[in-house]
Amino acid sequence: MRPPDRPLVSLLTDFGDRDPWAAICRGVILSIAPDARLLDISHVVTKFSVREGAYLLWCALPYLPVGVHVGVVDPGVGTERRPVALQVGRGDVLVGPDNGLLVPAAERLGGIVAAHRLDEPRYHLPVVSASFHGRDIFAPVGAHLANGVPLGSVGSSIDPAGLVPLAWAAPVVEAGHIAASVVFVDTFGNVKLGADRADVIRAFGSEPGGEVEVHLPALPPVNLPWRRTFGEVDPGQPVVYLDAFDRLCLAVNQGSAARRFGLVEDAPVALRLPGATSR
Amino acid sequence: MRPPDRPLVSLLTDFGDRDPWAAICRGVILSIAPDARLLDISHVVTKFSVREGAYLLWCALPYLPVGVHVGVVDPGVGTERRPVALQVGRGDVLVGPDNGLLVPAAERLGGIVAAHRLDEPRYHLPVVSASFHGRDIFAPVGAHLANGVPLGSVGSSIDPAGLVPLAWAAPVVEAGHIAASVVFVDTFGNVKLGADRADVIRAFGSEPGGEVEVHLPALPPVNLPWRRTFGEVDPGQPVVYLDAFDRLCLAVNQGSAARRFGLVEDAPVALRLPGATSR
Amino acid sequence: MRPPDRPLVSLLTDFGDRDPWAAICRGVILSIAPDARLLDISHVVTKFSVREGAYLLWCALPYLPVGVHVGVVDPGVGTERRPVALQVGRGDVLVGPDNGLLVPAAERLGGIVAAHRLDEPRYHLPVVSASFHGRDIFAPVGAHLANGVPLGSVGSSIDPAGLVPLAWAAPVVEAGHIAASVVFVDTFGNVKLGADRADVIRAFGSEPGGEVEVHLPALPPVNLPWRRTFGEVDPGQPVVYLDAFDRLCLAVNQGSAARRFGLVEDAPVALRLPGATSR
Repeated sequence: MRPPDRPLVSLLTDFGDRDPWAAICRGVILSIAPDARLLDISHVVTKFSVREGAYLLWCALPYLPVGVHVGVVDPGVGTERRPVALQVGRGDVLVGPDNGLLVPAAERLGGIVAAHRLDEPRYHLPVVSASFHGRDIFAPVGAHLANGVPLGSVGSSIDPAGLVPLAWAAPVVEAGHIAASVVFVDTFGNVKLGADRADVIRAFGSEPGGEVEVHLPALPPVNLPWRRTFGEVDPGQPVVYLDAFDRLCLAVNQGSAARRFGLVEDAPVALRLPGATSR
Repeated sequence: MRPPDRPLVSLLTDFGDRDPWAAICRGVILSIAPDARLLDISHVVTKFSVREGAYLLWCALPYLPVGVHVGVVDPGVGTERRPVALQVGRGDVLVGPDNGLLVPAAERLGGIVAAHRLDEPRYHLPVVSASFHGRDIFAPVGAHLANGVPLGSVGSSIDPAGLVPLAWAAPVVEAGHIAASVVFVDTFGNVKLGADRADVIRAFGSEPGGEVEVHLPALPPVNLPWRRTFGEVDPGQPVVYLDAFDRLCLAVNQGSAARRFGLVEDAPVALRLPGATSR
Repeated sequence: MRPPDRPLVSLLTDFGDRDPWAAICRGVILSIAPDARLLDISHVVTKFSVREGAYLLWCALPYLPVGVHVGVVDPGVGTERRPVALQVGRGDVLVGPDNGLLVPAAERLGGIVAAHRLDEPRYHLPVVSASFHGRDIFAPVGAHLANGVPLGSVGSSIDPAGLVPLAWAAPVVEAGHIAASVVFVDTFGNVKLGADRADVIRAFGSEPGGEVEVHLPALPPVNLPWRRTFGEVDPGQPVVYLDAFDRLCLAVNQGSAARRFGLVEDAPVALRLPGATSR
């Protein structure tokens, strides 16, 4: 294997695929770091949805090479929210607004070991606009970091404890019962819940084998099969499983669980073993 | 020209552009093959449409450099369908599920010269989930192959004749008459039919010059101009032509033939020369 | 910083993200220029909208490294419109149809210093179709230029003055008054007008501080705040500002000004200072 001598820079934004804003960020990065390997995570994050962007980074970054990751979902651009760079335990640097976007991924990559405010204009574009910090601050700082500029040079050190937090609602886990809420609905219509394998084990002792009783908003409770994956039920049939990130998930094989059950983000979903005593 | 020393890895999936699943595959590939040239074919294949994905690969791969091509349209993930790698006559390796997705492209690239089942876990991610083989099997195997791992190392040899086939309905070609069906509707609304230049020559002796009589579902027969391309009729006007892949095609100049004629995949379309005797 | 020895080739088309046409162009480029750095600007330009493509190139190219930029929004493919390559003052070469697509960006990059018609088949694919010049002419010529083939080799020199022009409607600027029209609506719903900072200074003497009176089609005049950016008004509130390209713009913070005010391309929008005498 060759040494990964070319730095990796990933990009996640809500800029959309048609508009040129994401391409402009790519162009700024390649102008400063001509040999960078660019990796687009997504540019069609639901606009202004810091939480969705945070979830996508949380999912993706562990599977990317160590590098610089620029995230721009930034409804507060041009206001007092701080532009920051966060070094994490794994060795990556995450660059973006201090609005929670970077925090869950940073915690999953070994936690934040240093945080800096991007207040050194030397690493910005010469003119910084009020509305496009992706182009003027985040992309160029990310590229300079990819070139080997030390984190300490891009701005003053700040206390990681003072960063804007972001967390999904914690599940309520009791013996035989999990109450969680919808964290994300993917484009297949798979419904990701705010609970994971550890919560399942705590609630049920082991992964359920047969059916679970699922409580959904505005619907009567329904018994659904628990399986290893959606392909183990017939097409069109619903299923509960732990997804490829060990997250509790509802799906419909070759269909949309979100549509089937009318589920959107934040909707409450509870699971219990059939026949277990009611809470 | 420089030697193409950096391996090419292409990706085609139905993972969508917003979700992080495609980016995760890119990240896994670059983690294993840091210098690979990644080329995205499409990630918005209609979900679960193995046939559409197969058509896109058939179109695209002949124009890509020789490399490793990873295709993931995989409704059967986690079930008994086999993960495979197919070596083709041109020298490429195609990696994906054994559900027909890879077959038409493989045949167009010189045919399958070797097929292996991806049963060597050494080239998978350490933990293989039941629902995301794109990340856990196909991307890492593709990257290892791009790094030069021999095809024989990624798993046991299987008989290409036993692969799940995929073929579009063959046209019925008679003197003066072609009956075919819709294979693909592109995002312009151009309607690609299951017949090609050779079928046209067999039916009509040569490429028709003037008009052809077109039989469409639920519409009276209509005479349409046969031209070299859509730009040879006025904007808004329909046309029959051989497309850039020598495939028989209906279009509307700067419009959508699919919408104009209510055509969807599998719809039957027949052509005859005007005034030719009825079948 | 490493020398940017690998040539940059950017791509902008209206081919869509699902269809394989854009990937085929990428594949052709990498087949000819194996070490090129590919940068996608957009492939979801509104189909056939030469003007929108021209706007996107105008926005993006100044932020990309010097390179070869291939643009394909080409409703006239296969007709008499000329395929061209334009060298600009900054050193880039722009490749695409002679339909205005490349002109505004070329002017912004220092102006056209040489123009050539792509009539040297040696740099095309061996077979040139009538309907896919992106694949058969523009991508291969762009790749050969990226490899260092001199501009003069790809075809005969033509007079830049004879190129098909493209310009947005000029604003009418008077003391205290600007009348412009909508040039572009981005995917946030931000409305870009055909007037810039210089026009604003000419009309108002300086950037307005408080409110401006905005005249919109089919609505009574409305006083809107003028700010540095949308983030300086409350979420859901409209604002007038100069965008990150110094272009006059209407926005709604975390919302869509296009939807709020029913604005589409070419709609007339006028601004005056409140209390200024009517024209």
